[in-house]
Amino acid sequence: MASLNYSTTGEPDYERILDEVASAVRGVLGSGHVPDRIPALADADPRAFGLAVATVEGDVHGVGEWRRRFSIQSISKVFTLALVIEQGGEAIWARVGREPSGTAFNSLVQLGYEQGIPRNPFINAGALVVTDRLLTLTGDAYGAVERFLRTECDCTKIASDQVVASSEADHGHRNAALAHFLASYGNLENPVGSVLDHYIRHCAITMTCAELALAGGFLARHGVRRDGSRLVSRSDAKRINAVMLTCGTYDAAGEFAYRVGVPAKSGVAGGILAIIPGRCSLCVWSPGLDDKGNSVAGIVALDTFTTLTGWSVF
Amino acid sequence: MASLNYSTTGEPDYERILDEVASAVRGVLGSGHVPDRIPALADADPRAFGLAVATVEGDVHGVGEWRRRFSIQSISKVFTLALVIEQGGEAIWARVGREPSGTAFNSLVQLGYEQGIPRNPFINAGALVVTDRLLTLTGDAYGAVERFLRTECDCTKIASDQVVASSEADHGHRNAALAHFLASYGNLENPVGSVLDHYIRHCAITMTCAELALAGGFLARHGVRRDGSRLVSRSDAKRINAVMLTCGTYDAAGEFAYRVGVPAKSGVAGGILAIIPGRCSLCVWSPGLDDKGNSVAGIVALDTFTTLTGWSVF
Amino acid sequence: MASLNYSTTGEPDYERILDEVASAVRGVLGSGHVPDRIPALADADPRAFGLAVATVEGDVHGVGEWRRRFSIQSISKVFTLALVIEQGGEAIWARVGREPSGTAFNSLVQLGYEQGIPRNPFINAGALVVTDRLLTLTGDAYGAVERFLRTECDCTKIASDQVVASSEADHGHRNAALAHFLASYGNLENPVGSVLDHYIRHCAITMTCAELALAGGFLARHGVRRDGSRLVSRSDAKRINAVMLTCGTYDAAGEFAYRVGVPAKSGVAGGILAIIPGRCSLCVWSPGLDDKGNSVAGIVALDTFTTLTGWSVF
Amino acid sequence: MASLNYSTTGEPDYERILDEVASAVRGVLGSGHVPDRIPALADADPRAFGLAVATVEGDVHGVGEWRRRFSIQSISKVFTLALVIEQGGEAIWARVGREPSGTAFNSLVQLGYEQGIPRNPFINAGALVVTDRLLTLTGDAYGAVERFLRTECDCTKIASDQVVASSEADHGHRNAALAHFLASYGNLENPVGSVLDHYIRHCAITMTCAELALAGGFLARHGVRRDGSRLVSRSDAKRINAVMLTCGTYDAAGEFAYRVGVPAKSGVAGGILAIIPGRCSLCVWSPGLDDKGNSVAGIVALDTFTTLTGWSVF
Repeated sequence: MASLNYSTTGEPDYERILDEVASAVRGVLGSGHVPDRIPALADADPRAFGLAVATVEGDVHGVGEWRRRFSIQSISKVFTLALVIEQGGEAIWARVGREPSGTAFNSLVQLGYEQGIPRNPFINAGALVVTDRLLTLTGDAYGAVERFLRTECDCTKIASDQVVASSEADHGHRNAALAHFLASYGNLENPVGSVLDHYIRHCAITMTCAELALAGGFLARHGVRRDGSRLVSRSDAKRINAVMLTCGTYDAAGEFAYRVGVPAKSGVAGGILAIIPGRCSLCVWSPGLDDKGNSVAGIVALDTFTTLTGWSVF
Repeated sequence: MASLNYSTTGEPDYERILDEVASAVRGVLGSGHVPDRIPALADADPRAFGLAVATVEGDVHGVGEWRRRFSIQSISKVFTLALVIEQGGEAIWARVGREPSGTAFNSLVQLGYEQGIPRNPFINAGALVVTDRLLTLTGDAYGAVERFLRTECDCTKIASDQVVASSEADHGHRNAALAHFLASYGNLENPVGSVLDHYIRHCAITMTCAELALAGGFLARHGVRRDGSRLVSRSDAKRINAVMLTCGTYDAAGEFAYRVGVPAKSGVAGGILAIIPGRCSLCVWSPGLDDKGNSVAGIVALDTFTTLTGWSVF
Repeated sequence: MASLNYSTTGEPDYERILDEVASAVRGVLGSGHVPDRIPALADADPRAFGLAVATVEGDVHGVGEWRRRFSIQSISKVFTLALVIEQGGEAIWARVGREPSGTAFNSLVQLGYEQGIPRNPFINAGALVVTDRLLTLTGDAYGAVERFLRTECDCTKIASDQVVASSEADHGHRNAALAHFLASYGNLENPVGSVLDHYIRHCAITMTCAELALAGGFLARHGVRRDGSRLVSRSDAKRINAVMLTCGTYDAAGEFAYRVGVPAKSGVAGGILAIIPGRCSLCVWSPGLDDKGNSVAGIVALDTFTTLTGWSVF
Repeated sequence: MASLNYSTTGEPDYERILDEVASAVRGVLGSGHVPDRIPALADADPRAFGLAVATVEGDVHGVGEWRRRFSIQSISKVFTLALVIEQGGEAIWARVGREPSGTAFNSLVQLGYEQGIPRNPFINAGALVVTDRLLTLTGDAYGAVERFLRTECDCTKIASDQVVASSEADHGHRNAALAHFLASYGNLENPVGSVLDHYIRHCAITMTCAELALAGGFLARHGVRRDGSRLVSRSDAKRINAVMLTCGTYDAAGEFAYRVGVPAKSGVAGGILAIIPGRCSLCVWSPGLDDKGNSVAGIVALDTFTTLTGWSVF
């Protein structure tokens, strides 16, 4: 696949690029598996696909089902982290690390031998700590996330899907175990039940690719929100991007950096939010996951997009 | 610390920046520890410091002891990896992964439960596999590295320090254990003794900051050597940078990406090679290490440099 | 210390032996630590000490505070296991293993890589599964244990200490984490809250050394209860003793077998129940624990007792 | 299967019991796998079977191929341990632990997080330390073991099989890795090559079931050799039995104690040495192994023998 012939400072032909991306993913649609851990998500169509690009100027381009809502799941962890940094600064890093988690296997034992300090804010244990902190800082962690997303997308319909949230609550023994384990180390400020409730609800928010791309725009704009106000400092925006690159795609972060080369955060419902600093934010969605838990078609799409544009952080 | 006022496309005032970097590190010189694992390296001066920047055009700027030779140690792993990719392409990735190693603790057990496949080419086990492959491809792994470095630096004096190499061989039970363990899984093509010999010798090469910055220039020039010929493809250069960012600074890769935000590879003698794609390659050296094994003053220097220039991949 | 001169088939002079044991422990009383994990137990007197021996014929000999009640804690796991085997036979072994746990560190990760099957019924995770099974089999796990203990000791005052139970429930995040983790693998039949409630209550039962020695008598009598009726088969009694020897004293089971050489189960409040098959059951109590969680004076007492009598299973 | 009707103090009818044992194992002969790790052992007949019992008085009874030599492998670890205790006393326990190893998986990582101290003398790492110590104490570890075995069996033909030893040396990368790892922690007194050489040779000794049963007799006689002289104290004999029970059958020690209930040590060539203190020592041999590395028919044979005699330590 040859790189398109356009100046790296000029604006690429997004429509043509997105068409090529859609062609490239066709062959893998339907492959991968749709996880059955959360019953309400288990019947997703593995052939569904959508992609949206939001430029730093705020223009949105899309292909496929880019206006269809899906469960953002772990992508919400980017927003809780940003809001905690906005409200509470650096203090969160005393309670959660910034290192890749190694294998899934290790994420559990790691909590034990590192005395209840999760390795990073994007593994579930770390995200529970971040949600707990946001709950302390705002009094309503879920509400803070919802408000931010609604404002950034200018859409009051963005909300948590109660069926998905209930389904997760009923089947969320793993997260309950992590939360109690964190509490046993004194690394939760709020009751286990409250933290789990806010966590499950912000994971169950449904959004479209277009909306997620817009909501992640502040990371492409070095910390500046869509309305021009600053959410986090330039330095903190870079840092969140760094954490996404090293920790954003579970135990495939190294592989993803190698192949795609941009900061990204994936979710178990098949979404991936990716940032190309200074240029654009993208969201791709397709429910079929690989064995590391990332969307098969989503990775192919982002790989194709970065190859066509020649954009990479490296 | 405010960012210097210069256009991001214009050339920065390197002399002034390097002076500021030298000032910034002054307070931490002498802190950290000099490891005593390799006796021949144990008497290094913890207050020594040098930094060199090589622009993509080939200009070199330096401060401190930037023309003094030191043991490159693990920084050599970047060159063995690049040479294997040049000679043998993608095949190496069947024998070594691309994921961060998690904790030092895990690097050992990881080999066991992942059936002898090291997580990445920059942990010792992975670098032994890369050296083994280079030995098969070239017949002389050490020689191939030495030749590349001499050419890139236009200096025939670059060579392995025999005292350091002998010292490592005598005290290298840990590496011998890893090599035998790899062999027990059939993941070495050459005899354990040969692989260890070439590995130890390329780690014991001594170079100056200026030379290492020049030798790493191909990664800043997207794969192109100093003489304009191509070593690896643009895509492979990006990929090596990605592996450096996610795996290049031991178990502090996440922290380093967060704080400094550029691809880098550190060595146990206190050197760090860092790449700013499209702009320059840097090498900093100061022997005092933090508890993750990275140069204390080296990280402060790179942090200051990227803050002053505003350069980061994110 | 010389072995007493008595025939191994004749009856030893228990009073004299117990006096010697009491002398032997004097020097270590007050050493060790009293754990503060469960606030209601944290103010125990580390100098307290009691020991009782119940012969297979039902005679009881004691020394020190052998008629003072203390919290039996993990010693209760012997009784839940025996009652599950009595009621449900071998089926429990499909849900819990019979191997020593290795280190404390591993007990957690082990659950993960062995798919929710605890290594043995005496680590907390395994005991939760046994309690869950007893709850299913009897409808009232706590009640079944209480009834058995009251009958065996002919004392209706044996009961759970509500203050201790409440204290454990409030501070039992670690056990809650384990229970949710087990549930996430489908290895609990009853709701997490019910299992934890019964588990915490049977751990909070208070008994005297004399009562515990009597209650453990069926294991010295090869499965026969005090009234001559059979609780478990001869073979199952031997097997429970085997599990006690290999798994009964946390990560010190090998050390305990080496030093004392008889089946035993210890509890965090400082009690140890030990079995000398065919001869007697003993219970010793002293709250100061070593760093493996076993009573310092308790081990000295049992070591002295087995040395004086020459009794060991080996 | 009913227990034979004989007085527990009287002498059992060994011939009849051994015939019943032979019948019991018939159905499992040929099951299990013969490991191919050591090529010279890979062609063993999985249907071979032999069993010998040596009473404490020195009478030997046998069934099947009880006079055929096989490779004793890890059973040799019992003799090196006993000889080190005889020569050097308790000091060895500062360099090796006495706890079960947990899973095979952990035995490797365990060395790392417990700073080079193997968990027990029967895992390979621990046995290497014991052999190293015996080499220091005697100047010839292999020779000391050979001499002891020859004397105890009154047979000068007992020797190491050079083909097996060479085969192990050529394929022994795992043991070499462990030895170098121990050396990296300073837990070897002799050169890695020497320790491996003596270790491999004593593992490659070939003996018959009858000879191994005789050689293990000192453990049934509470430390007394066949000629009436004392090898180790009564207390140390009990302690070695305790270590065999908790650590002698790899990660199946708990299961073996549960099922068979006597101290035992198994080897990878299908032998198992078992001790019934005060009564007899047994050796069974059949090359087919279960997935824990213990002889399938060997365990059935010992289970049957202890059931028929009613003998167990519990």
